[in-house]
Amino acid sequence: MSKNICFIDGLEGILKYREIDINQLVELPYDAVSYLLILGELPVDQELAEYSSRLHGEREINREVMDIIRMCKLNIDSMEALRTIVSFISQFDPDINDSSPEGNLRKAIRLIAKIPTIVAAYYRMANGKEPLPPDRFLSHGANFLYMIRGSKPSQLEAEVMEKDFILSAEHELNASTFSSRVTASTLSDLYSAVVSGLCTLKGPLHGGARSEVMNMIEEIACPENAEEFILEKIAKKEKIMGFGHRVYKTYDPRGMIFKQLSRQLAEAKGDMHWYEIAEAIENTVIRELVEKKGKPIYPNVDFYSGVIYKYMDIPPQLATSIFAIGRVSGWIAHCFDQYEKKRIIRPRAFMLDEC
Amino acid sequence: MSKNICFIDGLEGILKYREIDINQLVELPYDAVSYLLILGELPVDQELAEYSSRLHGEREINREVMDIIRMCKLNIDSMEALRTIVSFISQFDPDINDSSPEGNLRKAIRLIAKIPTIVAAYYRMANGKEPLPPDRFLSHGANFLYMIRGSKPSQLEAEVMEKDFILSAEHELNASTFSSRVTASTLSDLYSAVVSGLCTLKGPLHGGARSEVMNMIEEIACPENAEEFILEKIAKKEKIMGFGHRVYKTYDPRGMIFKQLSRQLAEAKGDMHWYEIAEAIENTVIRELVEKKGKPIYPNVDFYSGVIYKYMDIPPQLATSIFAIGRVSGWIAHCFDQYEKKRIIRPRAFMLDEC
Repeated sequence: MSKNICFIDGLEGILKYREIDINQLVELPYDAVSYLLILGELPVDQELAEYSSRLHGEREINREVMDIIRMCKLNIDSMEALRTIVSFISQFDPDINDSSPEGNLRKAIRLIAKIPTIVAAYYRMANGKEPLPPDRFLSHGANFLYMIRGSKPSQLEAEVMEKDFILSAEHELNASTFSSRVTASTLSDLYSAVVSGLCTLKGPLHGGARSEVMNMIEEIACPENAEEFILEKIAKKEKIMGFGHRVYKTYDPRGMIFKQLSRQLAEAKGDMHWYEIAEAIENTVIRELVEKKGKPIYPNVDFYSGVIYKYMDIPPQLATSIFAIGRVSGWIAHCFDQYEKKRIIRPRAFMLDEC
Repeated sequence: MSKNICFIDGLEGILKYREIDINQLVELPYDAVSYLLILGELPVDQELAEYSSRLHGEREINREVMDIIRMCKLNIDSMEALRTIVSFISQFDPDINDSSPEGNLRKAIRLIAKIPTIVAAYYRMANGKEPLPPDRFLSHGANFLYMIRGSKPSQLEAEVMEKDFILSAEHELNASTFSSRVTASTLSDLYSAVVSGLCTLKGPLHGGARSEVMNMIEEIACPENAEEFILEKIAKKEKIMGFGHRVYKTYDPRGMIFKQLSRQLAEAKGDMHWYEIAEAIENTVIRELVEKKGKPIYPNVDFYSGVIYKYMDIPPQLATSIFAIGRVSGWIAHCFDQYEKKRIIRPRAFMLDEC
């Protein structure tokens, strides 16, 4: 695992996983990117076929897991349910006590495969519908959309979902990945490390941002309202959800891809409504903050992804869980790296201010 | 909350919570130390009575929680069960969506009060016994021992349990506290932050050390074997569990108190066996590593606490969960501090090497 898991150039707006640019990565299946992150190299055809087959074969969840999903109240945050259920399923993993690289890879595959099934099952139950079994012949993206909707998505939607998972998969030491690493640094098991990532992603300043973008777009309701809404936010010095990033001081390369995808979806559906609201928000923010004040406040990964979810009928309360479905491969890549280091992360108090 | 949660002088062997020395703190009830950590000041009598009464009144767990405990397999790691159950109970907290300081304090009290009940209930079920309801008239320590044993402990045992919880309650940015803070830094809820701490404490390099000390003492079996056992470990350059600390370069002040307590317990029970094994281990390590090689490898917090658990018939598999019962007050104190900062913890990759 010599290649860096992630490379970010925040000034130039470049993002690479394992030395491959994000613009190339989105052309691959999610399974290939997951393999790349976790195993360090892109798979050749045969390796990818085998990895996908293992992943797709592990999607099912057992009856006990369905029971615990049923025990979660129907009105709780979907990340609250996901956190509990992922924590619960470790007891069914035959490799739970095998911390060898092979044992950890088997656990990793189960986690990546089962998390979408769990998210979809809880979502359907919370909406009064029976959960659907996964379809092993569909891609990661298509299968997830199928499990939440009950019908197979269009090819474009399936592709967009795959790309969404890829764009969410990894971003260096963001807070959730960092907490997974801290957990893994004590040589705690992979389920604990992933649960720790889920706990952290749940926060409104992290994974919660995407659903807030969706709520904002809905509140604005039509493109003509966007300018006034944003000017008011700026006047009140309020945070505009989906804009700005601690690391990027230019357009987030993921944001750029999401923008193109949301336009494609809008055109395919013959409905530019949500896209135009988003563009009007972006134009106002860029004119007011970037051009007039020189602040590097561009759309980040959460902004146009929120628009995409609007077009795919994904409700805001699922947004963070979907982020988790993509991100779990990145968390696991970092955990494997941390396991090799065998060194506990234990900063002193003064270091907190530097993070 | 102006006073530092924790102060450590690793060269002089000084530990303070909120500016009060650990040697003074162990003379207080756990509830008072918990109050101090979370609210920043020692309580006056009336405040302590009220806080204790709230804590003791929140110990009960409901039927649904008992159901999920029953759904955990009986042979899993007790931290694996605890992680799931604590994650599950957030849905019953009426303040789950209230992130005001008052709402968070109510959640904190429920977490501190219920975690011992959960640990004891799972422990008894895993051992084929019916769980016992908590006794609100007992101290935190006495009640916990009562719930695992089914009989009230002696006064000395109850006191030792209280002191154990106090000594475990806080230690600056150790890995589990740090991961709780990273989780809280995204403004994720308090249950998520505590679950993240549990995930991290579970690791053998962190909370797991105490049970490994117990296993080592058992393996050595009698004081005469200790020297040879340790010399062999040193010759093979193997880690000796319960010795050395990233921060302390002298005797860990908690280790010193634990040593006194374990001697007291041994004398009260008229059985010096475990104490003598431990002392023989310590003498060998100090002679070989400190005196001959100048390495600062002294007993840490995990060493004599393991001896205490031997005397109190606490099995090794409970050791990490007991650590968590004490530590949860510290995690929460740090989360409250982090919530006030409203700044996400997001280090860059190069910072990892400094932690």
